Amino acid sequence: MKKRALQTTVGTVHPDALAYTAGRDIELDQALVSADCAGTAAHVTMLSRMPVKPRLISGTERNKIVRELAAILRDAARGSFRIGLEDQDVHLAVERRLTAKLGELGKKVHTGRSRNDQVAVALQIFTKEQLLATMEEGLSLVQALLDLARRHRTVPMVGRTHMQPAMPSSVGLWASAFAENLLDDLELLPAAYRQSDRCALGAAAGYGVPLPIDRKLTARLLGFEEPSHNVLYASVSRGRNAMVALAMLSGIMTTLSSLAQDLLLYSLPEFGYFLLPAAYGTGSSIMPQKRNPDVLELVRARAGAVAGEWVRVMAVLKGLPSGYNRDLQETKEPLMRGFDTTRASLRILAPVIRGMKTREKALLAGFTPAVFATDAALDLVRQGVPFRDAYRRVKTSLDELTMPDPGDALARKKHWGAPAGLDFKWTRRRVDRLTRFAEKSRRQWRVALKRLFGGSFHERRH
Amino acid sequence: MKKRALQTTVGTVHPDALAYTAGRDIELDQALVSADCAGTAAHVTMLSRMPVKPRLISGTERNKIVRELAAILRDAARGSFRIGLEDQDVHLAVERRLTAKLGELGKKVHTGRSRNDQVAVALQIFTKEQLLATMEEGLSLVQALLDLARRHRTVPMVGRTHMQPAMPSSVGLWASAFAENLLDDLELLPAAYRQSDRCALGAAAGYGVPLPIDRKLTARLLGFEEPSHNVLYASVSRGRNAMVALAMLSGIMTTLSSLAQDLLLYSLPEFGYFLLPAAYGTGSSIMPQKRNPDVLELVRARAGAVAGEWVRVMAVLKGLPSGYNRDLQETKEPLMRGFDTTRASLRILAPVIRGMKTREKALLAGFTPAVFATDAALDLVRQGVPFRDAYRRVKTSLDELTMPDPGDALARKKHWGAPAGLDFKWTRRRVDRLTRFAEKSRRQWRVALKRLFGGSFHERRH
Amino acid sequence: MKKRALQTTVGTVHPDALAYTAGRDIELDQALVSADCAGTAAHVTMLSRMPVKPRLISGTERNKIVRELAAILRDAARGSFRIGLEDQDVHLAVERRLTAKLGELGKKVHTGRSRNDQVAVALQIFTKEQLLATMEEGLSLVQALLDLARRHRTVPMVGRTHMQPAMPSSVGLWASAFAENLLDDLELLPAAYRQSDRCALGAAAGYGVPLPIDRKLTARLLGFEEPSHNVLYASVSRGRNAMVALAMLSGIMTTLSSLAQDLLLYSLPEFGYFLLPAAYGTGSSIMPQKRNPDVLELVRARAGAVAGEWVRVMAVLKGLPSGYNRDLQETKEPLMRGFDTTRASLRILAPVIRGMKTREKALLAGFTPAVFATDAALDLVRQGVPFRDAYRRVKTSLDELTMPDPGDALARKKHWGAPAGLDFKWTRRRVDRLTRFAEKSRRQWRVALKRLFGGSFHERRH
Amino acid sequence: MKKRALQTTVGTVHPDALAYTAGRDIELDQALVSADCAGTAAHVTMLSRMPVKPRLISGTERNKIVRELAAILRDAARGSFRIGLEDQDVHLAVERRLTAKLGELGKKVHTGRSRNDQVAVALQIFTKEQLLATMEEGLSLVQALLDLARRHRTVPMVGRTHMQPAMPSSVGLWASAFAENLLDDLELLPAAYRQSDRCALGAAAGYGVPLPIDRKLTARLLGFEEPSHNVLYASVSRGRNAMVALAMLSGIMTTLSSLAQDLLLYSLPEFGYFLLPAAYGTGSSIMPQKRNPDVLELVRARAGAVAGEWVRVMAVLKGLPSGYNRDLQETKEPLMRGFDTTRASLRILAPVIRGMKTREKALLAGFTPAVFATDAALDLVRQGVPFRDAYRRVKTSLDELTMPDPGDALARKKHWGAPAGLDFKWTRRRVDRLTRFAEKSRRQWRVALKRLFGGSFHERRH
Repeated sequence: MKKRALQTTVGTVHPDALAYTAGRDIELDQALVSADCAGTAAHVTMLSRMPVKPRLISGTERNKIVRELAAILRDAARGSFRIGLEDQDVHLAVERRLTAKLGELGKKVHTGRSRNDQVAVALQIFTKEQLLATMEEGLSLVQALLDLARRHRTVPMVGRTHMQPAMPSSVGLWASAFAENLLDDLELLPAAYRQSDRCALGAAAGYGVPLPIDRKLTARLLGFEEPSHNVLYASVSRGRNAMVALAMLSGIMTTLSSLAQDLLLYSLPEFGYFLLPAAYGTGSSIMPQKRNPDVLELVRARAGAVAGEWVRVMAVLKGLPSGYNRDLQETKEPLMRGFDTTRASLRILAPVIRGMKTREKALLAGFTPAVFATDAALDLVRQGVPFRDAYRRVKTSLDELTMPDPGDALARKKHWGAPAGLDFKWTRRRVDRLTRFAEKSRRQWRVALKRLFGGSFHERRH
Repeated sequence: MKKRALQTTVGTVHPDALAYTAGRDIELDQALVSADCAGTAAHVTMLSRMPVKPRLISGTERNKIVRELAAILRDAARGSFRIGLEDQDVHLAVERRLTAKLGELGKKVHTGRSRNDQVAVALQIFTKEQLLATMEEGLSLVQALLDLARRHRTVPMVGRTHMQPAMPSSVGLWASAFAENLLDDLELLPAAYRQSDRCALGAAAGYGVPLPIDRKLTARLLGFEEPSHNVLYASVSRGRNAMVALAMLSGIMTTLSSLAQDLLLYSLPEFGYFLLPAAYGTGSSIMPQKRNPDVLELVRARAGAVAGEWVRVMAVLKGLPSGYNRDLQETKEPLMRGFDTTRASLRILAPVIRGMKTREKALLAGFTPAVFATDAALDLVRQGVPFRDAYRRVKTSLDELTMPDPGDALARKKHWGAPAGLDFKWTRRRVDRLTRFAEKSRRQWRVALKRLFGGSFHERRH
Repeated sequence: MKKRALQTTVGTVHPDALAYTAGRDIELDQALVSADCAGTAAHVTMLSRMPVKPRLISGTERNKIVRELAAILRDAARGSFRIGLEDQDVHLAVERRLTAKLGELGKKVHTGRSRNDQVAVALQIFTKEQLLATMEEGLSLVQALLDLARRHRTVPMVGRTHMQPAMPSSVGLWASAFAENLLDDLELLPAAYRQSDRCALGAAAGYGVPLPIDRKLTARLLGFEEPSHNVLYASVSRGRNAMVALAMLSGIMTTLSSLAQDLLLYSLPEFGYFLLPAAYGTGSSIMPQKRNPDVLELVRARAGAVAGEWVRVMAVLKGLPSGYNRDLQETKEPLMRGFDTTRASLRILAPVIRGMKTREKALLAGFTPAVFATDAALDLVRQGVPFRDAYRRVKTSLDELTMPDPGDALARKKHWGAPAGLDFKWTRRRVDRLTRFAEKSRRQWRVALKRLFGGSFHERRH
Repeated sequence: MKKRALQTTVGTVHPDALAYTAGRDIELDQALVSADCAGTAAHVTMLSRMPVKPRLISGTERNKIVRELAAILRDAARGSFRIGLEDQDVHLAVERRLTAKLGELGKKVHTGRSRNDQVAVALQIFTKEQLLATMEEGLSLVQALLDLARRHRTVPMVGRTHMQPAMPSSVGLWASAFAENLLDDLELLPAAYRQSDRCALGAAAGYGVPLPIDRKLTARLLGFEEPSHNVLYASVSRGRNAMVALAMLSGIMTTLSSLAQDLLLYSLPEFGYFLLPAAYGTGSSIMPQKRNPDVLELVRARAGAVAGEWVRVMAVLKGLPSGYNRDLQETKEPLMRGFDTTRASLRILAPVIRGMKTREKALLAGFTPAVFATDAALDLVRQGVPFRDAYRRVKTSLDELTMPDPGDALARKKHWGAPAGLDFKWTRRRVDRLTRFAEKSRRQWRVALKRLFGGSFHERRH
């Protein structure tokens, strides 16, 4: 069957080519409707204030457009705004709707703008919002881990190196180690946020326009810190911004995969340290006795998925010539999938951590005298024996080691950060700092939306 | 809002956990309906012949089940067989349907089988089918390239190294180089095919069953070369089979990305060697004059996507303990996406190659006397000058080089594989060998299906 | 030939196992000598002040040790401090030397410390130093690009999208786009720096020690911002710190690979925009006329190398159980290689940029009337035509476009960040901010070293 | 300090550029000396027989050159053939030596050849040799695993899914599962071997030469199956050949990482199934009681390293324009490192497997009645209960399960590939097939070398 070329907003295209180029955009772009409408609203507001004669767009015209954009937002919230294959993406779908409803007026909105900067600013808004959501959901898991740590700060647990029993430790140290790891991961996010906080609008196709557009105004209207500067760089920075975000998301997932691995290990009957909440496991189709920790296995596995998305973006960008290339489109899906997977993993782990039970008896059963060998050597050191000699002396008489009370042994390690020296206030301060950052940034966007659309619009969270 | 745990075929599960674990399976598994139905038909056929008293399943029962499986296949072809979230995947959906229609009988089909080997065999059938389709679509592109090469075997084109003009070459050499590259990529596929051609059915959950199941029979019924052997390995080999296939697909995509890069480059106005078919480009939203080669840019970019899928699978498998782990589920989507992207890219390039025009004038304009410097040095060699001296002599008098007719220069390079020494029969034989492999393998599967379902069933190609 | 087990500092090991586990450590660890000596000096200083009776190490003993460490530093600077295979790594080599020279005293230095925190702190010092060097070398390349941009801010150059001619642009816009891209990359480094600026010393094997060690003191002595907190996390954070640094280095390399690709493209005879400095190219073994831009090709290629190192570290960490695992050793080499490659690439590109020539005639020759199509459409917009209509009108009469003076066209794009609206002061401020960060951080480390070793020691830069 | 440009064999180059471009070649190329000498010997032999007047090289001259090449081989074996920075690589070093020793004659060897095909053929020879060595070392580990399996075929071990106890299994099934996994990995290698078995010599710089070179002769002289065909493809196929080989090596390493993970897990005191040979572990610097399984942790980790090398090569090749680009040099190191790491890992694991002890008591202690739940359900099935009902019945009365003798339970699973149905003869046949392939291929190369150098030369294995 011979297929006929399709007429689209940007020319006649073979339907196979259209299907190949649009890819999954039609589906993915649903997540960008509000960002695109906001960007368009800011752009036409700026056009309406541009000091040229005749005015490109009048104030009344601007209001008409913004009202229709608000209507699109409402439709999108209801699920009734659809992007068609002939639109190719959300941006042309919005423009088509405006033209359908407002006629001539709709044809003006693209003045002094290109799809490049339009996509770029929509992705910046999306990325900022997703980074904040990741931060919030990450902090919620941090909190669950810290709560667990605080409740179990004196509960002994064998500390391991090389997976083997090594030294006395505590459930508190174990849980708060993951909390701090995750905090480190999350504390990188503001750096990515700031790089997406320079508004690309006005870069056009990467070379600016011969019109006195006011990029500082549109940046302010959209709640950005400032406009981006070099228009050529602005038109392509979305690729590397995706790579930066994915590196950080991949870092989070790597941390979560280790946490999952520990939970999987320590809830095996051979350890029995932890009892996972039953509702987060699934059964077997053949083995009646099984209750499998699928959620944790998938968290572990999906760290690979997000890393794969990073590789994908890196491979797209490597050696790409300057100026916009369609290759950049291929950085959108990985970014979106990266956020989806990471956020879902953070959200699913929080109730697992909150619902898990620790079994002190099993934890104590893990201790043997050998676990206290280093403590014994250091006791000799306190008596004046050089460490290497103390080490050797203990090593040659391991059988003579006696087993102290693990709790007592823990209590002796009280320096900064040791099992008995955990400073939860210090961690609290770090959590608070990030929380404030997220709240402040959320507020800026809410204020911007209200200013643009007059408060009649309630954003839907993704 | 507090969510309630859901009752599923394999136990009570929190809806968030169900959503997280099912992932995109419900959607992806549509591609596995026919493979799962065939696997189930073979399994119950074998059960019906098992020499135990009482018979686990009678011949009549077997026929009832197989008829219902054929009905599912027809529904799936019509798009009316749906997998629900409570099913988790195609396998439980098929079992649920059988039980709904056949009552008690449906509950018997899972005898001596686990979801592990059920998934494993379905993925083997899927993988084999996809490898063949990739081979066929790849060969079609090879053919397009060879046709181009044959038609332009004497059309001069500057040969390049380091992207810089280097030596006289031909469009024929250029096009057939990509054909051979792709042939090498495709010739690896049979090795992957053979590794998926050992039927995993009967491995159960990886430890076999205490029933006299006949694995050689089910393997034969499904058109496999033989059953897999070690049941533990059989239950997990799907992960590494996906990794093997993705490595090969990634190889194909890497080749295509270079081809795309060359086409992008040589169709720039600065070169003008090639004119791409207009229907495979798209326009710009801001620049009226543009016709962009988006298809080629996306082929180039999507090589990164398939590589990312390989990384994803590798990261899932690395360090995974033996025995089935749910992590393996995360190797299914990358495999499916890898096939989708690679096959679509092969298919979209074939008409581009067939539709492109070469512009001899522009090709000739690329020649300068310097391109013939090596030929000049070798002429001196023929007169007895040692090569290094000839090289130096030409180097110090580059300005004196004259420009011969490029066609004449080409005609002098006639050794095996050189511009004037291309042996299209040799390439033809390689194409034929692969074609025969694909045809023979297709036939085996068709015969198997016919035997299982009695010819009433027509497979839908994916 | 049967090999005999070797006696090492930490036990009897089969020589094959020793070779396999030591890997390239012996060679790599040369870069860590000064960091390890500083760490050891800080540790023994702290031990000498520990308020226990009897003192673990007296002030005099402390001075002896520190003097010997300073001697090791001098030997290392001269290249005469060697690490042997039986040492396994720098840490045991230093301890062995101390014991060889100071007898009993040497055996005391490892009191209250493990190789884990010893390696961790050495790598933190190394990482901080390398991040600063990367920043400095990156800023130097930024400066070269900005100088080029400033000198060519009004030199016209065809702006491209999809590699195709698109709109009027300038060499200034092109060069400063890469400068800003690189600045964004570099501005992430302080975030990585800060995460390595929490001193891990005192974490011991990840579980602290039952001694009143003063972690705040050692952190201060080594010029760190503060000690790390949770000792378990501190003992393993080196892995994720390497992953964070490599993500950033990979970002830099990706940027450089695009810059290299542009330079390769634009210096082809078909463009001739740029003339690369001859001393940075190499010749061909067979073609007398060739001068190949190998340096740029290798920059382009090595972006892949650094990305590969990131994947390597990610794959090591994914799913790793908590507590120190030897796997972490495999994150050291990628980190070191990542810094090596990135820094060498930054350093080699700076003189290429400074030495390249731009050829205005060739740049102008690239312009055609079509490049001004968007400008023509916007001129119609200024006359009141809606943009979509103007776009269509220009599109249907592309042949009638006339060619304005490219310089004039450029001068009309003067909004923020456009070719005629570049604000070099804004960029300058960003450069200055990073420079100050690097200088301040350098100073802290110099001051720390001076305090520890009494100024008799001059650090060698890597 | 201002550096001066260096005079090299191929032109004047800035020393920084030379250092940057040569990279680690000088070191790496030591592994290619014999391959390059053989390639050169075959090339000059062919030149000496070329039917042109005057002869390019006489028979006597050919013998002189070959004798000197044999001398280089002997020097290399002794470690006294060094490659200098001014040589850039082994190829120019060999040519320089020939010229130094043979004067005018040395200048002739490069006639009708480029460094491109010279490197290409050397890497093909290297790759083939390494693939065979990998195969042999892999088969040796397979053998160790099969020996373990055969000795423990009836030793019960809990079979696991989701890491949790699942069904009765055996040490024999566990060990032979890894043997078969590895066999599958190894059986891919011949496909890679065959793709490197088409001799690239004569491709010159990718465009052939205007001389009647006899590529079939050189291919035969070097023991290749046939010459490669298209010279353009031949000049660049080394990149994708490296990618193919690395994918396979990465597959092997992924398998080994799972084996290592299992060994690490099952030798923990909580399991105690296996006792690892002491000489393959190392001690701790702080904990006197520790014996750490570092070798296994590093095998696990290094799977990441080889995967990283694959990513590196993929990223180099993706989007690379056709014709030789210097980027290809960056595929040599990853290939060499990939072989090094994989082969060392195969070699270190074989003695670990041979030296490990299994502890039956601990293995039996892992069994609980629940492990037999599926067997109980299938017993009900044998009595006529549909499987799903039997499953449910057992599930609701798990507490009533009794524990049969694990050995008896195992003995009941005797179908093909089940614990009591392992067919070691089938596996043996697969091992034999690969062994024959390796032996035959080794022989071809030995015969070729003998023919070229007259038997006076003994190859050193890498």
